[in-house]
Amino acid sequence: MEELLDQILNECRPYTKQGAVATYIPELSKQNPDDFGIYIISSDGSRFSAGDHAKHFTIQSVVKPVLLLLALMDNGVEAVRTRIGVEATGKPFDAINVSDKSLVPEHFNPMVNAGAILLCTMLKGDSYSERFARLLELIRRLADNPEIDVDEAVFRSERETGFKNRALAYLLKAHGLFKDAVEDVLECYFRACSIRVCSRDLAYIGMALANHGRKFKTEERFFPAEYARFVNAVLMICGMYDGSGEFAVRVGVPAKSGVGGGIMAVAPTRMGIGIYSPALDEKGNSIAGIQALERLSRRMYLSIF
Amino acid sequence: MEELLDQILNECRPYTKQGAVATYIPELSKQNPDDFGIYIISSDGSRFSAGDHAKHFTIQSVVKPVLLLLALMDNGVEAVRTRIGVEATGKPFDAINVSDKSLVPEHFNPMVNAGAILLCTMLKGDSYSERFARLLELIRRLADNPEIDVDEAVFRSERETGFKNRALAYLLKAHGLFKDAVEDVLECYFRACSIRVCSRDLAYIGMALANHGRKFKTEERFFPAEYARFVNAVLMICGMYDGSGEFAVRVGVPAKSGVGGGIMAVAPTRMGIGIYSPALDEKGNSIAGIQALERLSRRMYLSIF
Amino acid sequence: MEELLDQILNECRPYTKQGAVATYIPELSKQNPDDFGIYIISSDGSRFSAGDHAKHFTIQSVVKPVLLLLALMDNGVEAVRTRIGVEATGKPFDAINVSDKSLVPEHFNPMVNAGAILLCTMLKGDSYSERFARLLELIRRLADNPEIDVDEAVFRSERETGFKNRALAYLLKAHGLFKDAVEDVLECYFRACSIRVCSRDLAYIGMALANHGRKFKTEERFFPAEYARFVNAVLMICGMYDGSGEFAVRVGVPAKSGVGGGIMAVAPTRMGIGIYSPALDEKGNSIAGIQALERLSRRMYLSIF
Amino acid sequence: MEELLDQILNECRPYTKQGAVATYIPELSKQNPDDFGIYIISSDGSRFSAGDHAKHFTIQSVVKPVLLLLALMDNGVEAVRTRIGVEATGKPFDAINVSDKSLVPEHFNPMVNAGAILLCTMLKGDSYSERFARLLELIRRLADNPEIDVDEAVFRSERETGFKNRALAYLLKAHGLFKDAVEDVLECYFRACSIRVCSRDLAYIGMALANHGRKFKTEERFFPAEYARFVNAVLMICGMYDGSGEFAVRVGVPAKSGVGGGIMAVAPTRMGIGIYSPALDEKGNSIAGIQALERLSRRMYLSIF
Repeated sequence: MEELLDQILNECRPYTKQGAVATYIPELSKQNPDDFGIYIISSDGSRFSAGDHAKHFTIQSVVKPVLLLLALMDNGVEAVRTRIGVEATGKPFDAINVSDKSLVPEHFNPMVNAGAILLCTMLKGDSYSERFARLLELIRRLADNPEIDVDEAVFRSERETGFKNRALAYLLKAHGLFKDAVEDVLECYFRACSIRVCSRDLAYIGMALANHGRKFKTEERFFPAEYARFVNAVLMICGMYDGSGEFAVRVGVPAKSGVGGGIMAVAPTRMGIGIYSPALDEKGNSIAGIQALERLSRRMYLSIF
Repeated sequence: MEELLDQILNECRPYTKQGAVATYIPELSKQNPDDFGIYIISSDGSRFSAGDHAKHFTIQSVVKPVLLLLALMDNGVEAVRTRIGVEATGKPFDAINVSDKSLVPEHFNPMVNAGAILLCTMLKGDSYSERFARLLELIRRLADNPEIDVDEAVFRSERETGFKNRALAYLLKAHGLFKDAVEDVLECYFRACSIRVCSRDLAYIGMALANHGRKFKTEERFFPAEYARFVNAVLMICGMYDGSGEFAVRVGVPAKSGVGGGIMAVAPTRMGIGIYSPALDEKGNSIAGIQALERLSRRMYLSIF
Repeated sequence: MEELLDQILNECRPYTKQGAVATYIPELSKQNPDDFGIYIISSDGSRFSAGDHAKHFTIQSVVKPVLLLLALMDNGVEAVRTRIGVEATGKPFDAINVSDKSLVPEHFNPMVNAGAILLCTMLKGDSYSERFARLLELIRRLADNPEIDVDEAVFRSERETGFKNRALAYLLKAHGLFKDAVEDVLECYFRACSIRVCSRDLAYIGMALANHGRKFKTEERFFPAEYARFVNAVLMICGMYDGSGEFAVRVGVPAKSGVGGGIMAVAPTRMGIGIYSPALDEKGNSIAGIQALERLSRRMYLSIF
Repeated sequence: MEELLDQILNECRPYTKQGAVATYIPELSKQNPDDFGIYIISSDGSRFSAGDHAKHFTIQSVVKPVLLLLALMDNGVEAVRTRIGVEATGKPFDAINVSDKSLVPEHFNPMVNAGAILLCTMLKGDSYSERFARLLELIRRLADNPEIDVDEAVFRSERETGFKNRALAYLLKAHGLFKDAVEDVLECYFRACSIRVCSRDLAYIGMALANHGRKFKTEERFFPAEYARFVNAVLMICGMYDGSGEFAVRVGVPAKSGVGGGIMAVAPTRMGIGIYSPALDEKGNSIAGIQALERLSRRMYLSIF
């Protein structure tokens, strides 16, 4: 199996040359576009890895499924569905029209920035620091890694330059979609995006979703199976930005990518996969990462279709 | 099992009162909104049915996955992907902007009318009658029912009143996306939509997709497994109009609905399902049909997530 | 004055090299991009010309203000305003979204193709040939030129290749905006666009609008002053496609351009201007023609602002 | 003349019942929807008034033409045209799509909020307080009223609740369209909107534009004639939100309305008009104010078309 992973990485490595690391957050532009790693956890407990699987990077949008999970755990399915839609918008990751007379859940989903910002406002906690602390705690538990923490340099960089997310947040507030102070909400959101993980961590989180909420090889349950199905379905519909349809056809498993170069993929009942390769295509997805997942899916029949 | 189906139908019957039969094609408005039937074929060969499962109706948009299948069989995956996109548009079933400077595959997918009209132009055949004959033949084979044929009254009604589809077809032609005569292409498309089926027929077609291209209980192969995965993935992403995300979350299987009141659902490796209930919600989906699928999915753990 | 015109033409001639003749109608691509002529009629009866002012070309979209005028004469202001909006759409000449649930007058105006096609359906006449005959007769009277007629080659070319206009017309019909046969309406519209004129003819028509409906130097009235003000206002708002704002700022008079290379400009109470220069900018406006009008406006203080 | 104004006010007063005062800024909701006043300055120096012409209200969007004027005076025509477009967007007053890959001048014009916020960044001044002070000074001079000042309660109300304008400003900043601190720019913009004026003041400002930059009855020049023509043309194209086309047809003079209930109208070379009537239609225009201008235009032949 590790031989297969090595082989796939070698086949896909040339694709890293076709992409570019994200630059809109200055700190991200310091990443090495040649980095490429993969980590897999199988439901039988085996673990496999190859390449730069231990390199750290910021989770960015891959935090969205965990945000969604915590919002579900805190509020239940109906409350989340009422406030945030689940339809693919067919638009890039932060599409909303300022002139829409009234913003409604149909305008966003949990995997676009506007939806994820709204998710922050649904987390339980007396303050936004507490909300964030609970999110971080959940990530540490799912990843079985108590050392996961925020990359403060990236966080500061996001907070200083996140004008588009500020625009989105003010727009949501203008439409009465939340009451809290914009800067508090964004502090939580920017921190969430700046959590530092490695491929292994994403594989563990993916395994929790693949295993329908149970810790693998145990009877311990992190969250109800229903929430896993909800998150996995949303990932399938809109986890890969506006490349979600292509990804469904070519790979066929729920997955989420982030501009930090990470991809978390979920093969329900079978495995969790974490990939790191920060050279992105123009849709913001890890270009070699998708190629690797396509090959892995074909050779291991991972497609759920 | 048939007891379960009866029970589900009874539970969902009140929903038929909340919808309305389609009226934009005059012939469709003659349907009985109280009709409600279901037919299931399991991979082990068992068949179950309840309600008006033998009632006939026109296939309408449920023909789109078969059109896609034949286009794949005639041209292969790459040719289809190059000419027709697979992203959810987040828009209703015929969204396209006349002013788009150039129409590109990203603007449509095989499950919206524009994409399905383009699929007609990709079928093999010396004439459009021959193309249609091949499509009808495939449907008869998949459904194991040589008597399936066109409902001529509905066909004439569609042809006489299908101004929006004419607009779409001329728009595609204006952008050079096909060369043939618009009326020839539309004749094929309108005939395809007017094919008369029953819940049983849809269940058989769904079973062929669930069974990855093999005829159930045999080794006979209708089409390669790869095409089944392609069609199933596309159905998941955009098979239920702009309610596809909700459907993925609530039901979790690939499916396609039509304004004739039919739904074909595919539980990969497990079963094909055909439903008929012509009272539609405002998105054009069978309202009681979706409710029945949601209950069936919960009780039989059909969700692929 | 003719010296001034010669000078302006010489100054602007280099701009003809920056544009290109229209090619989407095959016949139009035969035009000579170097042609450049101007004709002016002043309210005191003087006439001035320079360059290729006697060259013939097809009127194309410059027929839209005359179509609007005849629709006003046949139906009055209220009927026209009720069926066709007057707001700039900020979109190119045929913007309409196929998915708009219902098309309403706000979606178009008399200067975009959809609006002009609707104007054809508002003309009086037992048949569409009669409607067209009445339009041609009005143009001949306004231009004081009984020899104006259709360029049959261009007409056939438009009819054969006008797929986008067919799409628009079917879309309007699909939304119940007119009842007549699409091909009849389009025959009238394509004929209207194919009327052959010269700069002199456009100057006369412009003079009738500048003179608020009276034939210049006479007391004869072609149409009420109110209709002239209506047409002139609409030209100011959206006569130059999506370059109307720039034109208002730089030139400041109502005007209409066509892809045939003609521009008709109206300096209310002062003059009618006809220009021919078929090299177009990317917005579809005569590139040297606009430059000439800008210079003329500055030197003769034509801006109405 | 004052008799005519009284008569027009009486005729139009019933329309005030069909509108409603703005409520999105809490302070504005305190206005009396029955207030109705008009003030006219003629180029011969006569002044006429009727109704509540001395009532004070906040200038709101009517400040936009003055902002544009000062930006022109500070930077010249080319600089303004390069940074801010002049096309009608056909969209409401703050239309911009968050997902537009890059915002360009074509996306806004000086009469929508985004354009006006950008205008603030073009004013000369070492600080934004200085920029605002220069704007206020210009308004005082044009209106010949040194007592004009900010309504501090409205200003605070706008600053506290202006989430949509914050969204717009952050969006512009996210696209690199300005470098200054968003809150500084908005402070200037909100102050500008909160300037307290009366109908008389708007009439004087309108007269300066009508008189092409000269103080009426003097040879003193406030600004070059070219800037007046620029501002007047922009007002015609997009001064009345997405009712600009209707206004051009029905009234036919450049004008700007604000949600405070004011309208400033410019009859070039003839008169400046100020109106106050805070009951707005659904497009944000003073409903009785437009009616009054339509009647005035008809009886005094004000249309420039």
